[in-house]
Amino acid sequence: MTAALRVIPLGGLGEIGMNLMVYEHGDTAVIVDCGMMFPDASTLGVDVIVPDMTYIFENAAKFRGVFLTHGHEDHIGALPFLLERVPMPVYGMPLTIGFVRDKLDEFEIDADLRTLQPRDVVEAGDFRIEAIRVTHSIVDALGYAIKTPAGTVIHTGDFKIDHTPIDGKATDLARFAHHGEEGVLLLVSDSTNALVPGHGPSEKTVGSGLDRVFSNAKGRILVTTFASHIHRIQQVIDLARKHKRKVFMVGRSLVDNVETAERLGYIRYPRDVRVGSANPEEYEARDVVILTTGTQGEPRSALARMAIGEHKSVEIIRGDTIVISARTIPGNERAISHLIDNLYRRGAEVVSNEQPDTHVSGHACQEELRTMIRLTKPRNFIPMHGTLRHLIHHARLAKECAVPHGLVVTNGQVVELGVEEEGRVLEERVANGKVFIDSEAEEVPDVVVRDRQHLAEDGFVIAVVAVDSNAKLIRDPEIITRGLVHVDASQDMLDELRNQIVGMFNESHPEELRDSDLAQEKIRALLKRYFRKTMGRRPMILPVIWEM
Amino acid sequence: MTAALRVIPLGGLGEIGMNLMVYEHGDTAVIVDCGMMFPDASTLGVDVIVPDMTYIFENAAKFRGVFLTHGHEDHIGALPFLLERVPMPVYGMPLTIGFVRDKLDEFEIDADLRTLQPRDVVEAGDFRIEAIRVTHSIVDALGYAIKTPAGTVIHTGDFKIDHTPIDGKATDLARFAHHGEEGVLLLVSDSTNALVPGHGPSEKTVGSGLDRVFSNAKGRILVTTFASHIHRIQQVIDLARKHKRKVFMVGRSLVDNVETAERLGYIRYPRDVRVGSANPEEYEARDVVILTTGTQGEPRSALARMAIGEHKSVEIIRGDTIVISARTIPGNERAISHLIDNLYRRGAEVVSNEQPDTHVSGHACQEELRTMIRLTKPRNFIPMHGTLRHLIHHARLAKECAVPHGLVVTNGQVVELGVEEEGRVLEERVANGKVFIDSEAEEVPDVVVRDRQHLAEDGFVIAVVAVDSNAKLIRDPEIITRGLVHVDASQDMLDELRNQIVGMFNESHPEELRDSDLAQEKIRALLKRYFRKTMGRRPMILPVIWEM
Repeated sequence: MTAALRVIPLGGLGEIGMNLMVYEHGDTAVIVDCGMMFPDASTLGVDVIVPDMTYIFENAAKFRGVFLTHGHEDHIGALPFLLERVPMPVYGMPLTIGFVRDKLDEFEIDADLRTLQPRDVVEAGDFRIEAIRVTHSIVDALGYAIKTPAGTVIHTGDFKIDHTPIDGKATDLARFAHHGEEGVLLLVSDSTNALVPGHGPSEKTVGSGLDRVFSNAKGRILVTTFASHIHRIQQVIDLARKHKRKVFMVGRSLVDNVETAERLGYIRYPRDVRVGSANPEEYEARDVVILTTGTQGEPRSALARMAIGEHKSVEIIRGDTIVISARTIPGNERAISHLIDNLYRRGAEVVSNEQPDTHVSGHACQEELRTMIRLTKPRNFIPMHGTLRHLIHHARLAKECAVPHGLVVTNGQVVELGVEEEGRVLEERVANGKVFIDSEAEEVPDVVVRDRQHLAEDGFVIAVVAVDSNAKLIRDPEIITRGLVHVDASQDMLDELRNQIVGMFNESHPEELRDSDLAQEKIRALLKRYFRKTMGRRPMILPVIWEM
Repeated sequence: MTAALRVIPLGGLGEIGMNLMVYEHGDTAVIVDCGMMFPDASTLGVDVIVPDMTYIFENAAKFRGVFLTHGHEDHIGALPFLLERVPMPVYGMPLTIGFVRDKLDEFEIDADLRTLQPRDVVEAGDFRIEAIRVTHSIVDALGYAIKTPAGTVIHTGDFKIDHTPIDGKATDLARFAHHGEEGVLLLVSDSTNALVPGHGPSEKTVGSGLDRVFSNAKGRILVTTFASHIHRIQQVIDLARKHKRKVFMVGRSLVDNVETAERLGYIRYPRDVRVGSANPEEYEARDVVILTTGTQGEPRSALARMAIGEHKSVEIIRGDTIVISARTIPGNERAISHLIDNLYRRGAEVVSNEQPDTHVSGHACQEELRTMIRLTKPRNFIPMHGTLRHLIHHARLAKECAVPHGLVVTNGQVVELGVEEEGRVLEERVANGKVFIDSEAEEVPDVVVRDRQHLAEDGFVIAVVAVDSNAKLIRDPEIITRGLVHVDASQDMLDELRNQIVGMFNESHPEELRDSDLAQEKIRALLKRYFRKTMGRRPMILPVIWEM
């Protein structure tokens, strides 16, 4: 057993989202989490982004399983793209596995799903992996203690130390302490809030914030939150009951998740707040609560459509109070601002996450992170989940708390840890990066994404030229442009370009133009020069030569 | 004099940026501010956005001048596009006029620029317009009291009530109070921070925050702030002097603005912190401060290029401390996060606007807004500068402070105010909206922007078909696609489409296809159906039919 433990992050280190960590020792390897991320505005036409998993595909035989910390998309969303290539057992708590099953059913993938409870231990090759309960903004969240021949790794997953969680099931501090006492080789911990001082507020505090809203609202109340945030949903249901309102659920992911959570016993949705198939319009406004998807102002989400009167069953009306009980994901500020304005335009009142006690983070702040470090007393530390800035700040916290070796690494780097030596970062990097997936679950090659960005920036020009076998023009070239600035419709410009191409054909030696690659290149150069000079733009240029 | 005063916002009401307000009475009309806004990621290839000024162009004869509140781009940036169509006098304080002159020189526009001092009064048709000093995040900021035959309008411009401004020139509360005592028909006030409780901190507080950074930094210090923020720049220069460092200025807009500000006496840039044409590399790291553009992570800005080692004179090195002393404009979060990570990657330390005392807002918070309302005691109130949400919240503040008539309106609406009656909003809306301008200062039609968004989302397909005079195909169609998903390169798909088009031509009646519009439409329908069915996508489709 002289091999070292290798830690290989493939996602979530140096970025927010698509978390995926590989732990490997000799012939044993496991994956912790397999998440996706959502694209920003610069990757239009892309639905989701998943990590490059080439390393796993190429070493498939070693992999003994995926251990899921919880059921958020940035931890489970890439599973179909893993399992369709490399089937392996998937472990997680019941709600996590429930969400995974729903997802895999959509993809028609059969998988070996195995349910865990906190403190369960799984043997996977040379590893013994123990589940440890943590609190987070979803129920059934876990960290893992991974006993490897080189020593014990603590992988926290996303966590916060909420001492008063809604279900009473607090972070299992004792178990982290136990491993700390026995000796931890490596702590790998959540950096999302590494820049936020103090200790984050408990999920319970949101209850009082929402209670105030319920007490003041005279019309209907609409609450939008993440569809997986079972505790937040539970709090809304409980408040509806207290204030004698009925709860309507709108939005497919919300309805599906609540159904799964209820089936597994994670949500209490009492009969007296339910409405069956009834419509909110059948009730007095003051008797209605609507839970809905659409926290990020996504144009196709239920709430965004309600706000412009285009939702099939609910329309926002004067007197409605809308609570946005979720964080703003960076990049969505403008979409959310538009949503809020649309809601106000219809005479509604909006309570957003800027107001106190309408949302709390699910991630540990600095004092909680320090607590985790002091409990586990690791020899080595790798901060995960965050941009480089988050990782660096988190590593500083570990240093302050007397951890000997902090290792700031990003996706694709490899950390080797032996029993006695300190961890070291290898020179090599394994394949890593983003894989773009479209709405049909097909991969979108980088070149297509780059083409789209190019088209979006500067449009395109196509010139079709018909020549005879002597490379003489048979007729005037056809020129088509779209997305170019202020001159798409300009007949003058098109005439000018046609003349220039005709001129070029007349002046060039036929032998030269008979080489159609060369002729294409000459047309390309001509068009490129023209657009740069007259407009300062670089449209995509596609010359087509037809020999008739 | 029975005509009513008409207030017509053309920009900045219902959105952030491109502020433009028209005040009109009988044959007299004036403009207050003429700003632009920057595009978001959905309008690629657009450089700036300016308000639709059709209303001004169509009523040009009435307009007596533009009154500028201050020199920020969202208040002066659209001036060239106004003045090239409708020349008129432009009024503002010396620094504002200095910035405007620089801008108009670039556009080679000659204009009648007139310098104002606080408490100056200008006669413009039936209006008497008085300049009133306010504090803001730029020096030489003004509000205006506009005496019209219907009564006095107070237009605050962007303002905060900073009692300890860097230049000692505080908001002229007495003058606002004077007009309040005499009777104000209408207050039009800045809503940017209408959601922020309390009273904002003074610009002075940033000095102590920056002083701490200067005291702790062992290497070079780089500060990025808005190029027009003369007081912030002054504070950095003063601190450099105190800590015996030399100041380098990097970034064209910064260098230009400082030069203009210095020429007009707005900045003290003493000899002993200057470096002439020297290079930072010629000094010890601890003796250097670099002021630079690039607060928003713009990829082409000086700081972004330094952070990836592509700036011509400065490269970020281990030990540098970078202070981002500016607010994050919504939508730029990801770009700034990438910038910060790139800085950390080079071993620098970053102090961002999340840390206390590195930036303060230039806009009045709720208590300041209430102060302005109580000082001016208007009969009518129109909140300006903000999304609908800001305007509504600001109108509530006015109501709490006993203003009888609050009028929440957005761009293009017309408010009429008579001497005795309360203000009312007309049914009509004048032309309003966004005009897109590209890097060559040419207008980009909406359709081009929409085309680009379409291209970015789904790419395009062009089918070129050559037919003889009987509408028979002369050769196989040519099909070109770009930006489509995962199949651009698929020969099978192109073959299949060619076959389908050939099949269509064989099966259709020649008479039908001789109508080339109809033939185009049939090809379009065929392609559309194919891409929707096989890929669920809607590329831009452009059929071209060549009759040879």
